[in-house]
Amino acid sequence: MIHVVGHTAIDHISKVPHLPKANTSTHITDRQIYYGGGASNIAAGIAKLGEPVTLHSCTGGDFSGSEYDTWMRRLGVTQEFFVVPDAHTPTAFMFTDDNGDQMTFFEWGASRAFATAEAPALPFVHMATADPDFNCRVAERSEFVSFDPGQDVFWYNREQLGSIINNTDILFANQHEVKQMCETLGLTREMLIKKVDMAIFTMSGDGSTLYTRDSEHFIPVVPVKLADPTGAGDSYRAGFLSAYVRGYDPLTCCKIGTVTASYVVEHVGCQTHLPDWDAMKTRYLQHFGTLEVPKGPGVCP
Amino acid sequence: MIHVVGHTAIDHISKVPHLPKANTSTHITDRQIYYGGGASNIAAGIAKLGEPVTLHSCTGGDFSGSEYDTWMRRLGVTQEFFVVPDAHTPTAFMFTDDNGDQMTFFEWGASRAFATAEAPALPFVHMATADPDFNCRVAERSEFVSFDPGQDVFWYNREQLGSIINNTDILFANQHEVKQMCETLGLTREMLIKKVDMAIFTMSGDGSTLYTRDSEHFIPVVPVKLADPTGAGDSYRAGFLSAYVRGYDPLTCCKIGTVTASYVVEHVGCQTHLPDWDAMKTRYLQHFGTLEVPKGPGVCP
Repeated sequence: MIHVVGHTAIDHISKVPHLPKANTSTHITDRQIYYGGGASNIAAGIAKLGEPVTLHSCTGGDFSGSEYDTWMRRLGVTQEFFVVPDAHTPTAFMFTDDNGDQMTFFEWGASRAFATAEAPALPFVHMATADPDFNCRVAERSEFVSFDPGQDVFWYNREQLGSIINNTDILFANQHEVKQMCETLGLTREMLIKKVDMAIFTMSGDGSTLYTRDSEHFIPVVPVKLADPTGAGDSYRAGFLSAYVRGYDPLTCCKIGTVTASYVVEHVGCQTHLPDWDAMKTRYLQHFGTLEVPKGPGVCP
Repeated sequence: MIHVVGHTAIDHISKVPHLPKANTSTHITDRQIYYGGGASNIAAGIAKLGEPVTLHSCTGGDFSGSEYDTWMRRLGVTQEFFVVPDAHTPTAFMFTDDNGDQMTFFEWGASRAFATAEAPALPFVHMATADPDFNCRVAERSEFVSFDPGQDVFWYNREQLGSIINNTDILFANQHEVKQMCETLGLTREMLIKKVDMAIFTMSGDGSTLYTRDSEHFIPVVPVKLADPTGAGDSYRAGFLSAYVRGYDPLTCCKIGTVTASYVVEHVGCQTHLPDWDAMKTRYLQHFGTLEVPKGPGVCP
């Protein structure tokens, strides 16, 4: 069972002719509602690939019985939710104008419950963006820890980030997050990599790099028609972790993550085009050749 | 039966520490969802005061079975809706920062159906903000027409506004709307007033003025503890129209409108604190003395 800790969120993505200045208004020409939240995206991706997964999130009184709830249950994601009845499930409102400029309003809502929630001790956990202090407490108590700081990297102070990195086995980050972590910790990129067993740094459309104790591998992206890059990182992690618990070697796990992400970016939304294992395998074979059988027995915590 | 034509909308009213500039984000510290839309506010107010009312609005696939739907039905508002299954019910997102500065994003959504909808011929209709062309067509075909241009006053061109005013018996407007109508029509305020049987111009916390063919009356507000002025104009119209169809004279109708509005502004939201007729009457007696029995038989279209 893979456990994933972090946000379950609802994204309202709207188009406007122009972004408003203070005390003015604008018209929304299109608004789509998508299922999101980093942890939820990862859990959904793992479930779709066929691995048992439990999602630890904070949700509001609006979640139970909602379409999102139904979707998660249908995927088979086990819910370990801290429910705050008088709050909303975290919600993001994103407005993009005709020039591609954006404004985002993020409602933390029920996620305030992380601050006082009891941190679970987990055998195999991925921690996505969430309350830094809660993530630190989970990392301290858990056995095998995978971590991506995500957009909340700025909320970690030096002590928190140092503590969580010390407890991290696999670190995922994009280039912005690597830079910010190095600044917060006062480390070089090389020093940061040495602090964990394995680091995977993603570079949007330019592929990713896997750093282990004694090697470095570059993994190119699978070329697809890009509709929306949002959710690429989350689905990469879903693919990697699903493969990792099945016993695949880290480089193959990265390739499986890359293939998983290639499906997600073909459609708008983070959970709208998740591949199952067979679909992933088909594209893997096309792009990376044979998918070798895992050498070990897999991680079965 | 009073018919009300215009928007049914959902208002998301959020507080943020600061409004974002382009390509930045901000956190929502509080978000409340309120029932709104000018026509819906007026219809709800009329229903609560005990008068039969039919609401003509455009709604999306998200409305039927929603909490808003349930609320409207419980109030006894008859729905004559143009339903657009693949659109949202009109939705407004308002963000207010710590300095009181605001940004509004309005989603027209299902209201696009007004453009092609067949205009009903109605015996007694109030037209709130909606598609100008649709309102013009309703006004042409209907017998007794009450009209407030509301925030959509800017969308009327000279021909549309001229046409609808020519068919209007009662005109409601605030000071901004009066100014804009005069500019669009190339008329003075006095000339505009002369174009209708009755004009009621509201001045926020400074009361309202009733203009008839041969008289002018000032109606002071009922002093209350103001929580939120939004919805004051709509509830004034609900009170006025409910009284008018019961046969009260126009000045008494204005006072009943004023009292109705005084309840609504005591709470946040346009439909959260609507008075029933008894509550209205109690406060009316306190502030305006006796509520005389209507002289005529009332308007029973």
